[in-house]
Amino acid sequence: MQIAIALYERFTALDAIGPYQTLGGLPGADVVLVAEQAGPVRDDSGRLALVADKSFADVPRPDIVVVPGGPEQRDQTENEALLGWLRAADAHTTWTTSVCTGSLALAAAGLLDGREATSHWLALEELGRFGARSTGQRVVFDGKYVTAAGVSSGIDMGLALAGRIAGDETAQAIQLMTEYDPQPPYDAGSPEKAPAHLVERFRASVRA
Amino acid sequence: MQIAIALYERFTALDAIGPYQTLGGLPGADVVLVAEQAGPVRDDSGRLALVADKSFADVPRPDIVVVPGGPEQRDQTENEALLGWLRAADAHTTWTTSVCTGSLALAAAGLLDGREATSHWLALEELGRFGARSTGQRVVFDGKYVTAAGVSSGIDMGLALAGRIAGDETAQAIQLMTEYDPQPPYDAGSPEKAPAHLVERFRASVRA
Repeated sequence: MQIAIALYERFTALDAIGPYQTLGGLPGADVVLVAEQAGPVRDDSGRLALVADKSFADVPRPDIVVVPGGPEQRDQTENEALLGWLRAADAHTTWTTSVCTGSLALAAAGLLDGREATSHWLALEELGRFGARSTGQRVVFDGKYVTAAGVSSGIDMGLALAGRIAGDETAQAIQLMTEYDPQPPYDAGSPEKAPAHLVERFRASVRA
Repeated sequence: MQIAIALYERFTALDAIGPYQTLGGLPGADVVLVAEQAGPVRDDSGRLALVADKSFADVPRPDIVVVPGGPEQRDQTENEALLGWLRAADAHTTWTTSVCTGSLALAAAGLLDGREATSHWLALEELGRFGARSTGQRVVFDGKYVTAAGVSSGIDMGLALAGRIAGDETAQAIQLMTEYDPQPPYDAGSPEKAPAHLVERFRASVRA
């Protein structure tokens, strides 16, 4: 079971690592980080590089695709190398997945037309403009397409997908070994729960 | 505010990325990944490499240190390059932190003697043998030493520490932008909550 996590310049690190750490715990999982070219790929802060061990061309038929997001929409939606690989790989996948604004890449590739999907809360409207039926849920399954909300939600997505693939007990074992018993010190993780002025500040920065 | 995340062969990826993504959102945060030598460092599965942009020698006086864990205890506790750097850096840090079995490195370096600390649930006894007062809590503050439980707990630790450093509102903004509103599909993230036979299976594998 080959699981390809697609990297591109300015991706968000935790978007990629949440599914990596959870899906990577599946028996038989052969995870590979891929990018247009093999080699280091910098994240959105420029302060971290993950190594893509293979190029897109090296990995034409993964069983599972994971696309992380990143804060600059055009990095996903105008990235022809990424979109072309996604379209070709998707023809053979059993699951095609995204975290955060990675769903904009799937949608821009034409893979989410009319499908229910999610994205970072600041990108939900944009996701709709690319043809998906945008929901505010944290993890959305629509057929073989699985999309997760912002950044950290890739952990929840990875566990949910692990359960679908290998059963509840295997997913629970992964949860136990990653000690995923969340105890956030605040309850501000969604626009419904966070202080309204913070939500508005971020919405205004996106509008600007 | 220089934040140094220490890498070593066979570290666990999410241990490093949880604090990276949360603490990296602090205003003025200058995060740097460091290792004995600059260059790619492989994780515990061998399937992922993060790039250490600097060597330990390049970063002698970070303000904050983060040590991730990894499944092979001796990778932390017998790693003299890591332990030596931790001791020297700790003399100047404002915060010295760990995730998962990274606390075994701090303890082996002599930095947690008699202090309250935590670790991955499977490593709590071992942490006690290295001189810390082991607790089962998810995030433990003892003076400037902050330790987190297994793997995913570094996200909670990063947010809690962000709040201490920059105030609640900044930490809430980080939580909102990382959309950390956890919705695990199972409630099996701790040995108290997971199915007993899974807990016993992992305990038996550690004993073996």
